[in-house]
Amino acid sequence: MVQIIDGKAISDEIKAELKNEIEELRQRGITPKLTTILVGDDPASASYVRMKGKACDRLGMLSDNIPLPESTSQSELLAQIEKLAHDPAVHGILVQLPLPKHINETIILNAIPPEKDVDGFHPINKGRLAAGEDTFVPCTPAGIQEMLVRSGHNPEGKHIVIVGRSQIVGMPLAQLLMHKKKGANATVTVCHTGTRDMGFFTRQADIIVAAMGRPETITGEMVRPGCVVIDVGSNRIDDPECEKGYRFVGDVHFESVSKKAAAISPVPGGVGPMTITMLMKNTVKAAGASHSG
Amino acid sequence: MVQIIDGKAISDEIKAELKNEIEELRQRGITPKLTTILVGDDPASASYVRMKGKACDRLGMLSDNIPLPESTSQSELLAQIEKLAHDPAVHGILVQLPLPKHINETIILNAIPPEKDVDGFHPINKGRLAAGEDTFVPCTPAGIQEMLVRSGHNPEGKHIVIVGRSQIVGMPLAQLLMHKKKGANATVTVCHTGTRDMGFFTRQADIIVAAMGRPETITGEMVRPGCVVIDVGSNRIDDPECEKGYRFVGDVHFESVSKKAAAISPVPGGVGPMTITMLMKNTVKAAGASHSG
Repeated sequence: MVQIIDGKAISDEIKAELKNEIEELRQRGITPKLTTILVGDDPASASYVRMKGKACDRLGMLSDNIPLPESTSQSELLAQIEKLAHDPAVHGILVQLPLPKHINETIILNAIPPEKDVDGFHPINKGRLAAGEDTFVPCTPAGIQEMLVRSGHNPEGKHIVIVGRSQIVGMPLAQLLMHKKKGANATVTVCHTGTRDMGFFTRQADIIVAAMGRPETITGEMVRPGCVVIDVGSNRIDDPECEKGYRFVGDVHFESVSKKAAAISPVPGGVGPMTITMLMKNTVKAAGASHSG
Repeated sequence: MVQIIDGKAISDEIKAELKNEIEELRQRGITPKLTTILVGDDPASASYVRMKGKACDRLGMLSDNIPLPESTSQSELLAQIEKLAHDPAVHGILVQLPLPKHINETIILNAIPPEKDVDGFHPINKGRLAAGEDTFVPCTPAGIQEMLVRSGHNPEGKHIVIVGRSQIVGMPLAQLLMHKKKGANATVTVCHTGTRDMGFFTRQADIIVAAMGRPETITGEMVRPGCVVIDVGSNRIDDPECEKGYRFVGDVHFESVSKKAAAISPVPGGVGPMTITMLMKNTVKAAGASHSG
């Protein structure tokens, strides 16, 4: 029987730990606060921002969302970030992506002070991750590492094949897992659209992380018996049999892969819940560091 | 017959190109200048610094070395860097590593302004490399990429196995080669001391980069016929038959590997000359950017 890596359950475990940390911080007079900025009214982005706010509420953290119109100029957005940067009550600043096309994402992400950059997207935090220094690890990679370790599949000494080289998942995850550290020290291969024979690599892996954003692309014949599979994908596909007319599937073909794998994370209920929980964890960390110096 | 990838010849080719760029800059009134800081009197470090200065001279660039005693305090060194940071005539600042133990290397490297960080060791430049943005790529990885492309072994679409995960070679090279860019877009595997069966990986590689700093560790039986091998190692080993009593060998066992490989870079005369040339290239780039804004 394949082990289902339950992201919801692992996430609950981490949240219970976080509650204790938050309680300790509150006794020191610090309540961790995350402020999100949402530019425009994309429904998916609005929903993500709401979920982040609710996650804060449930943990006894503070949260705030600053909604800005689609027409917001880059300098207006920068001014808003500048204000939050200097607000000692705000520990984490998150600008919901994607931004409208007239705003330069790089300039915006660079304007968030590294010590409040709970998404881990500031170049200095990316550099610290590459260097193996203490930093805010981007939430999805951090969540994947926790899932593996807590489900009994510690990456140490394993061969991990990551499919996809995005700045949000594949690239930072590769760095995170190859350092000589606990829960890492893996031999890492990164595959992508430039890889000639994807199956050649995935069939060798002890652990596969599918993060290319293409529905059900990793199939049973691409994995070896006994491998561990983490599915980062969340692709909306039409399905007239569903009430809404669509459903979400991962980058892994669950039915065929789950017959061969030793363990697999489902979609939904796998990486998704972990990502938000790691955002909470980064915010608590930022709050703890803010008064410790 | 195995192709010898001649780092000296490729380096000369790049230097000829650089001379043209330097001439153009001089006509605009800019002479690229590299200033090195050498703390203490380690003979190897002193020799590296001299070589860098000479390379500048030969290309018609300016150079300066600031020798500081072993007893220099961290704040004295920081003050020196601060002075160079504000000197518009200095385009590149290089603090020769390693530093004495009482000085925190991270703090020093962070103090070099990113736009004069021609070694590419500042966290913000590491972050830019990870993000695939324009930056100063560390000299050895940049040199390896140039060697591969210019010797007819473009990494695009290849499987590259990098052995070693140092901050100076392995880690930045992995990032450099996996981006979707010209001369990159490779499927990259990084092996290290935590890898269970090194030969399993190296035998699959189209291109092997040996950068673990262990003499003659990659042997003929660890490579497949027709592979391309770049040897980054430079290890001093005792040899009573040599006049000096020692000689330098790479991380690759040249004799056995050269019998199977399609191409191999020698030690010395391979990566070594490329590294200094890429430092010159980064300095010229810094000079060009300094007056272009």
